[in-house]
Amino acid sequence: MVPTRARLKLLRSLRRRDARRREGLYLVEGRRLVEEAIRSGAAVEEVLASHAFDDEALLTAAAAHRIRIERIAARDVERISDTKSPQGILAVVRSVPGGAPPLREAGLHLALDGVADPGNVGTLVRAADAFAARSVLAGPACADFENPKVLRAGMGSTFHVALHRTEDLAGHLSEEGIRVVAATLDGRDALSVGPWEGACCLVLGSEAHGVSEAVRRVADEELTVPCPGRAESLNVATAGAILLFLLSGRRKGDP
Amino acid sequence: MVPTRARLKLLRSLRRRDARRREGLYLVEGRRLVEEAIRSGAAVEEVLASHAFDDEALLTAAAAHRIRIERIAARDVERISDTKSPQGILAVVRSVPGGAPPLREAGLHLALDGVADPGNVGTLVRAADAFAARSVLAGPACADFENPKVLRAGMGSTFHVALHRTEDLAGHLSEEGIRVVAATLDGRDALSVGPWEGACCLVLGSEAHGVSEAVRRVADEELTVPCPGRAESLNVATAGAILLFLLSGRRKGDP
Repeated sequence: MVPTRARLKLLRSLRRRDARRREGLYLVEGRRLVEEAIRSGAAVEEVLASHAFDDEALLTAAAAHRIRIERIAARDVERISDTKSPQGILAVVRSVPGGAPPLREAGLHLALDGVADPGNVGTLVRAADAFAARSVLAGPACADFENPKVLRAGMGSTFHVALHRTEDLAGHLSEEGIRVVAATLDGRDALSVGPWEGACCLVLGSEAHGVSEAVRRVADEELTVPCPGRAESLNVATAGAILLFLLSGRRKGDP
Repeated sequence: MVPTRARLKLLRSLRRRDARRREGLYLVEGRRLVEEAIRSGAAVEEVLASHAFDDEALLTAAAAHRIRIERIAARDVERISDTKSPQGILAVVRSVPGGAPPLREAGLHLALDGVADPGNVGTLVRAADAFAARSVLAGPACADFENPKVLRAGMGSTFHVALHRTEDLAGHLSEEGIRVVAATLDGRDALSVGPWEGACCLVLGSEAHGVSEAVRRVADEELTVPCPGRAESLNVATAGAILLFLLSGRRKGDP
């Protein structure tokens, strides 16, 4: 069935955050991400494939999950797509309402306090997934988890980790029973971080201004990755991954 | 002096790698990077500022380094610039001929075996700088150090670390006296890396295929960042930064 002009316009609008919020839908592009969305049980409403798209394994996987597959013109894929050379495959995915962030659940969590660059947010979700974090919580002014660039940098990890957003990051972090570790430029040497148990949430601040004052006030501890060289600081995704790596290795009771 | 059309065309062509190689020049954009280029003693030939540009401290620093400052129209800045909202300031910098890579000099070095994404290359140069690496060596198929996106992600670190490129990465790495550590997906647990002294070079492979066979053959050791979670792997810049961090902490004789 050829999609109507109105339908194409709606799909194309999903590049914008306001449209994604309004429709409760977002787009996933490319063979690898669409496959990962299906495999991970994301709420895929529909797969759109160009007539030339011939990855039968992917189409079979979609059919096995009872996902509708619509064939559309390559030109229409290009119109909808966020990339310059789309691979002829897209999925329309329903946003999952977040609910309360599970910060008090035992394990490692990550919170983003204004991380604005979508590449950084995606890379951090991928690192959180790699180091077995339970959830990622985004405060105000963060790039949207459903932003196409976040999805690409996330390499499928956005479908693995529980993702939440909140307008009141400091409020959630100040609940009892969560050890809050803030990454700052003048904290304790991260290598000295001791063993922990229960729930631990690492907070990373914005690229320009770091962790906000409100969040610093509720943090139990501030950690810094020591940089003996000349660079003033590390990229937030780099520093965050090093801290997730160190914290994940210091969890009590792990083998 | 108003730049001629031919001059503008030449400057604009420097977005392309072939033109940069031919002219031996590249462009640095934006207040922060231009300042860092001047302060670090990069071979700045000229600073181009729009008529409205009024950061007197930066212009004074350029003048103190006897760098010519040319005022040009904002429209011309936009024509030359790689960014959508240029800050009205550019520097024309002469490429420094690389010479032989200093891999045998005592300390930590980084080699890139086909890291193609400019954001990754820039982030890795920044991490190499932060962890006091002596040099970064790029093999074939790497993003160019003078690529505007590499410069932006490098945040000034491209002016601090010795940067080299080679067509024969495995050849340079196989020289005597260099401990070569390759990052792979099935190496030894990176946390177990022992102390080292002398010259140590970490090699990171391409985003899609990892370290090449030729380089693996000359490596003394393969290390992997353990990922207990579901993500199959880390982004190369993330994994590289964690390994640089660990290696920089295990250098013998460091405080």
